[in-house]
Amino acid sequence: MIKVTLLEHTPEPERVVAMAARLCYSPSGAAELKEKLPEAKVADMVKMLVEMGHASTLEHVSFTFGIEGISRVLTHQLVRHRIASYSQQSQRYVAAHDFACVMPPSIAAVPEAKARFEALMQSIREAYDAFTELGIPKEDARYVLANAAETKIVVTMNARSLHHFFNLRCCNRAQWEIREMAYQMLAEAKKVAPLLFRNAGASCVQTGRCPEGKMTCGRFAEMMKLREP
Amino acid sequence: MIKVTLLEHTPEPERVVAMAARLCYSPSGAAELKEKLPEAKVADMVKMLVEMGHASTLEHVSFTFGIEGISRVLTHQLVRHRIASYSQQSQRYVAAHDFACVMPPSIAAVPEAKARFEALMQSIREAYDAFTELGIPKEDARYVLANAAETKIVVTMNARSLHHFFNLRCCNRAQWEIREMAYQMLAEAKKVAPLLFRNAGASCVQTGRCPEGKMTCGRFAEMMKLREP
Amino acid sequence: MIKVTLLEHTPEPERVVAMAARLCYSPSGAAELKEKLPEAKVADMVKMLVEMGHASTLEHVSFTFGIEGISRVLTHQLVRHRIASYSQQSQRYVAAHDFACVMPPSIAAVPEAKARFEALMQSIREAYDAFTELGIPKEDARYVLANAAETKIVVTMNARSLHHFFNLRCCNRAQWEIREMAYQMLAEAKKVAPLLFRNAGASCVQTGRCPEGKMTCGRFAEMMKLREP
Amino acid sequence: MIKVTLLEHTPEPERVVAMAARLCYSPSGAAELKEKLPEAKVADMVKMLVEMGHASTLEHVSFTFGIEGISRVLTHQLVRHRIASYSQQSQRYVAAHDFACVMPPSIAAVPEAKARFEALMQSIREAYDAFTELGIPKEDARYVLANAAETKIVVTMNARSLHHFFNLRCCNRAQWEIREMAYQMLAEAKKVAPLLFRNAGASCVQTGRCPEGKMTCGRFAEMMKLREP
Repeated sequence: MIKVTLLEHTPEPERVVAMAARLCYSPSGAAELKEKLPEAKVADMVKMLVEMGHASTLEHVSFTFGIEGISRVLTHQLVRHRIASYSQQSQRYVAAHDFACVMPPSIAAVPEAKARFEALMQSIREAYDAFTELGIPKEDARYVLANAAETKIVVTMNARSLHHFFNLRCCNRAQWEIREMAYQMLAEAKKVAPLLFRNAGASCVQTGRCPEGKMTCGRFAEMMKLREP
Repeated sequence: MIKVTLLEHTPEPERVVAMAARLCYSPSGAAELKEKLPEAKVADMVKMLVEMGHASTLEHVSFTFGIEGISRVLTHQLVRHRIASYSQQSQRYVAAHDFACVMPPSIAAVPEAKARFEALMQSIREAYDAFTELGIPKEDARYVLANAAETKIVVTMNARSLHHFFNLRCCNRAQWEIREMAYQMLAEAKKVAPLLFRNAGASCVQTGRCPEGKMTCGRFAEMMKLREP
Repeated sequence: MIKVTLLEHTPEPERVVAMAARLCYSPSGAAELKEKLPEAKVADMVKMLVEMGHASTLEHVSFTFGIEGISRVLTHQLVRHRIASYSQQSQRYVAAHDFACVMPPSIAAVPEAKARFEALMQSIREAYDAFTELGIPKEDARYVLANAAETKIVVTMNARSLHHFFNLRCCNRAQWEIREMAYQMLAEAKKVAPLLFRNAGASCVQTGRCPEGKMTCGRFAEMMKLREP
Repeated sequence: MIKVTLLEHTPEPERVVAMAARLCYSPSGAAELKEKLPEAKVADMVKMLVEMGHASTLEHVSFTFGIEGISRVLTHQLVRHRIASYSQQSQRYVAAHDFACVMPPSIAAVPEAKARFEALMQSIREAYDAFTELGIPKEDARYVLANAAETKIVVTMNARSLHHFFNLRCCNRAQWEIREMAYQMLAEAKKVAPLLFRNAGASCVQTGRCPEGKMTCGRFAEMMKLREP
């Protein structure tokens, strides 16, 4: 079960973004702008910046998530996003006895597959325990652990990088696990910055078109319903 | 007159860093760690992480500064730091009539130089005004503006990137203007995260040795007095 | 006069990109793929990768340009592109006596403005000389130098970063100077990697639409003629 | 068996680095410098730049490696290095029937462990085959694959990033597998740029001191013998 917690974020994220954008085109200073921008102006500016892709101002605010219940399939994909910071539970230093697993729904749906998956995970747990009893270091015993093994990670991204992450990972062509995590992250981010993440999501939802130029997921119409006017 | 304001920062920055570090080596989750780490443990961990250069955990917290009263000499140096985000007052869109200037102390100290500097800046202001009256766009009229012309900028860096920035720019070999700004940024950051920025500063202050292997600034002994035990 | 030279680049750039893309979906190894991919297959793959925006493979090849005859207006904009490497002629260490200038066409076109521009540059040169004679260090004397002062820079970007750079800087809303440089860089890159940079250029040329959603430059139809079928 | 191939690199890498460094401090242009710098001057400059850590000039040259025979334990560590480009064989799209494995030496050395490891890998192979026969997609069947499963990757890093990579991954505290790969990459890089990678390696070898301030690996004296005078 994926569990995403928004641990911290830059306070008043939408005000900070609007202030930074305003500074570029104004003779006033940042501190003054931050204090005096009316709420409605902040809202208008943030909507326009996101809409038009003036993305550099979105970098001034960052969001730190604690994420649990995810597989190392997912984290190997996740850490490919380079404009981000990660601290992950280490398989070199944390013992993985009785490790929990992420079972893909496609396996869970087939009783024969499900049973085999569970039995195999149990064999792996037993082998891992046997290895550590034989004095094999944890960092080597873990070579037998499955991709399915659960892990935990702290992730920090700024709002621009998050938008890009959602473009790719809320997309129907992303794998189901990272997509589910991305939607949870988006939901958390929207709670504290609804305008900043308005229409955030798969590229099609954000821009109204598929960057691959061929809606291979077959769900373009359905996705378009997610767009707010 | 350089004016640095810390506009926002990740709340509880030292707790966030300690939590992220702890997650790597613990079976517990991030939210639980964040809540339960005792204050003294946070302090011990942050000191150790900074001391030993385990820098990736420092990336989870970021600091946003508003900076005014600086020249474009300085900002051209500043924006070379790439792991950072910038929003700068635009000379393309903001008119520079009566622009203020940064006068180097070495010029201010020589009456003949000072007078010439001021007269020249006045000639530039008059030429800029004349150009705009002749219909030259602001973005082109500014080609005559001096490096000394004042600008404003909003800068966001995470703590790891700030440490690196201080290593280079608090160094006596950095130019006086960016060095002065770096020291002001460091002072602001220390107010909210004293342990995270303990011994932050020039490389020599942070590590006890000059990376260039030859204390060409001639102030090594003096700098060492800045190090806390 | 802007002068762009392609100093070096990754050899066989299109073959390298195709090989990297192929590796992701093939059981074969990289060295084998690099040698055995037929020329026509390389061409097909590169066209498809660029068309569909599968950009990560484009990062494996980089291009190093030497650029001269540009102003510090331009370089201050240029170095804001962070996924790139720069080595710039230093105003701290290289004396700027008799410095050359970049005169904007809008100023050159108005005799009165042109004369004033030239006279002002001459006053600045004389002040700079006077300052250095008075013992002001070069790094401080340069505070009076104009934005127009010429500089030189070595720039390295990978093909993905170049594509993004061209999207922004070949755009009609970029300033004329950096736009002219971007077009020269694109022309040089195309000579050695024509398929990799096919339809590279402003966002509209590359994708067929303006990301700002409102063709404020008023030249959309004209730009579309640059697109190859 | 780890196999590292240097697929491509910026031609004349040491000359390019010296040229870029020279440009910063010279009134000459890049193309002229590149052509005219005598070989001995190039050598002197590169040695000095590396010695003193003037690292930005090292970014202008990049190296592309094809790497095979490595586990996904290794690649999950590898891709955490963010100033680099990766194209990895996909477990979503490439079938892993009869996948090869990396067996840690500590397991290979204990007959009981070795037998158990091999039997377990065989069970995983059979389960993977059974899953795909049951119609489970490859991207889900791979959840049972072990960390030990072999993968292939193309990696491009510039020389500065490589230096940092070697600092961390040639260190005795890095895991044996990525350390072995790092040493192979270093050997390949040295063949084409011996001065650029002179004394490259673990931090202690490069700088003569352990950044963690406590030689916990217990091999400091031995490592120091790797330093060239």
